[in-house]
Amino acid sequence: MPDTPSPGSASYRQAGVDIAAAEGLIPRYADLARVAGRPEVLAAVGPFSGLFNLRGYRDPVLVASADGVGTKLKLAALLGRYAGLGHDLVNHCVNDILTAGAEPLFFLDYIGGTDLPDEAKLEIVRGIAEACRDAGCALLGGETADMPGLYASGDFDLVGFIVGAAERDNVIDGSRIQAGDVLLGLPSNGLHTNGYSLARKVFQVGINGTANEAARLLTHYDELGETLADALLRPHRCYLPGLKPVLPRLRGIAHITGGGIPGNLPRILPAGVAARLQRGSWPMPPIFGLIQRLGNVPDEEMASVFNLGLGVILAVAPEDADAIRAALPEALVVGEVISQHGEQRVVYA
Amino acid sequence: MPDTPSPGSASYRQAGVDIAAAEGLIPRYADLARVAGRPEVLAAVGPFSGLFNLRGYRDPVLVASADGVGTKLKLAALLGRYAGLGHDLVNHCVNDILTAGAEPLFFLDYIGGTDLPDEAKLEIVRGIAEACRDAGCALLGGETADMPGLYASGDFDLVGFIVGAAERDNVIDGSRIQAGDVLLGLPSNGLHTNGYSLARKVFQVGINGTANEAARLLTHYDELGETLADALLRPHRCYLPGLKPVLPRLRGIAHITGGGIPGNLPRILPAGVAARLQRGSWPMPPIFGLIQRLGNVPDEEMASVFNLGLGVILAVAPEDADAIRAALPEALVVGEVISQHGEQRVVYA
Repeated sequence: MPDTPSPGSASYRQAGVDIAAAEGLIPRYADLARVAGRPEVLAAVGPFSGLFNLRGYRDPVLVASADGVGTKLKLAALLGRYAGLGHDLVNHCVNDILTAGAEPLFFLDYIGGTDLPDEAKLEIVRGIAEACRDAGCALLGGETADMPGLYASGDFDLVGFIVGAAERDNVIDGSRIQAGDVLLGLPSNGLHTNGYSLARKVFQVGINGTANEAARLLTHYDELGETLADALLRPHRCYLPGLKPVLPRLRGIAHITGGGIPGNLPRILPAGVAARLQRGSWPMPPIFGLIQRLGNVPDEEMASVFNLGLGVILAVAPEDADAIRAALPEALVVGEVISQHGEQRVVYA
Repeated sequence: MPDTPSPGSASYRQAGVDIAAAEGLIPRYADLARVAGRPEVLAAVGPFSGLFNLRGYRDPVLVASADGVGTKLKLAALLGRYAGLGHDLVNHCVNDILTAGAEPLFFLDYIGGTDLPDEAKLEIVRGIAEACRDAGCALLGGETADMPGLYASGDFDLVGFIVGAAERDNVIDGSRIQAGDVLLGLPSNGLHTNGYSLARKVFQVGINGTANEAARLLTHYDELGETLADALLRPHRCYLPGLKPVLPRLRGIAHITGGGIPGNLPRILPAGVAARLQRGSWPMPPIFGLIQRLGNVPDEEMASVFNLGLGVILAVAPEDADAIRAALPEALVVGEVISQHGEQRVVYA
């Protein structure tokens, strides 16, 4: 047998994992999760798995999605603003399953990190629980993993999993979209959770986590009307409350995330049609103009990285457009569905 | 407006995120996922969310869990053995929901990392798809996130999310466990996915990812009968095939993960009872003895970090024990349930 280095008496705690401390947090997570309960929950945070008694569906389709918040968390961590990340995570996931017409049932989270303080973990989970409550979603469980050596000290990643449901007859899959349909856009409130690696590079923030970077984030910009931090850390909007009443009238819902409009709108379009968007038909939050100018970012790059002001794009029958706009006053007509000519799925008028 | 550093013309690709490359992998993930299909899947890898038409349950309880594989992935990455991690991830999750008597329906994965080669991502997903297929579980979707600046180059984290179902009447929750019940243990095949931060410290592997560490991993140990790598990277066992036929007769199932037997067995015990385990009633794989000796790890620490040879512990009525052992020949009698005296939930005879 070879000689293997022996580090003296080894313990898991010295190796960076404190099981007792981790166990001690579970009741506190459970307390936080209590605000996001539902009567169908039979067992939540604590046991090996969460149990949810599905009721009230005739022919249920379960709709599931997994997502992270990207490197937005580097900025939040730099300023210690953790709770907003929970809202980001949940809202992103809620919007993703909303594209199929599903309402959320339950959510689970994963926090992996190294030396992340208990208070930070609890703040993240508090934000998750609040956002779940707001979306009528149960927080059914999660996993917190201490990963010494994988993350730099204080760094972490954050992942969310959501399950929702829709009656099979009511699933929205874009297949009924046809030429002549109206495209309605719902405003985003900023970057949501996409494009942060580019934004961090442009503003030189959340790179090495220095005090200088924190100071840059806290700088007030007149053209933003707020600090860079407030503009960049505003949580991802949740479109469920607005869209829920009009879901039966929607033919397609695109969530504008990584890849921007050209990367996401085509995902709901059936073969043979394309989207024609009217340039300038929606307002672009000033943070995007600032990023473009300071970073000298080409138009095409901006469009393929950021949502540029639209968080969701809906496809609706022309005869339904007015009623939907009446029910959803913030919806703007941003374009229409046309027959596809050539390879482009998204063209601009 | 303050001066903010401008890095010249910025692009997402220069910032470490290549959307086109990421999009290009999606059809390849979808190809891999095809081996893990089920007729209930209406839409899998590709769209914003995965759709699964739940059928055949009278009063379904959805059982969900989220998990990672811990720092085992540092060792796998060092040797480029990625596919096994997919099996680790899926099997851990399948076992977690099996504790409630649930059979898996679908699985989603998350891979977050920096500069992880495409081939590594595809190997991980290939392993996930194979393990899902083996467990009769659909691979419904996932998320791959490039996180420049969060992970060191080549590092990644891996998270799994599973949803299964059981008829409400058949949910196993430990509540029927009573004094006199027999405890049966099912062998683990090694560390499974827990205790790697301690094992890495003891063997000094997967710390800085050097060639010396790789050489140490590839060393053959006579007392293991194999290399350290083979002993440490054997995938987490899946207990579904063995337990499925006997589920209706089980009163409780504990999955022995982080926290070892004392951390996990009490999770299924109702108030007023404790577990008395018979020392030496099951074989301990030699890797644990090696870790203890080289690391000079106290007994109590070993027991609270590692599974020490039991992957699952079952509680069964005494009158059912023989029939269950006949159906599950590898099950060993390892102890019994007793009335609780004092605070200890697990005692040793």
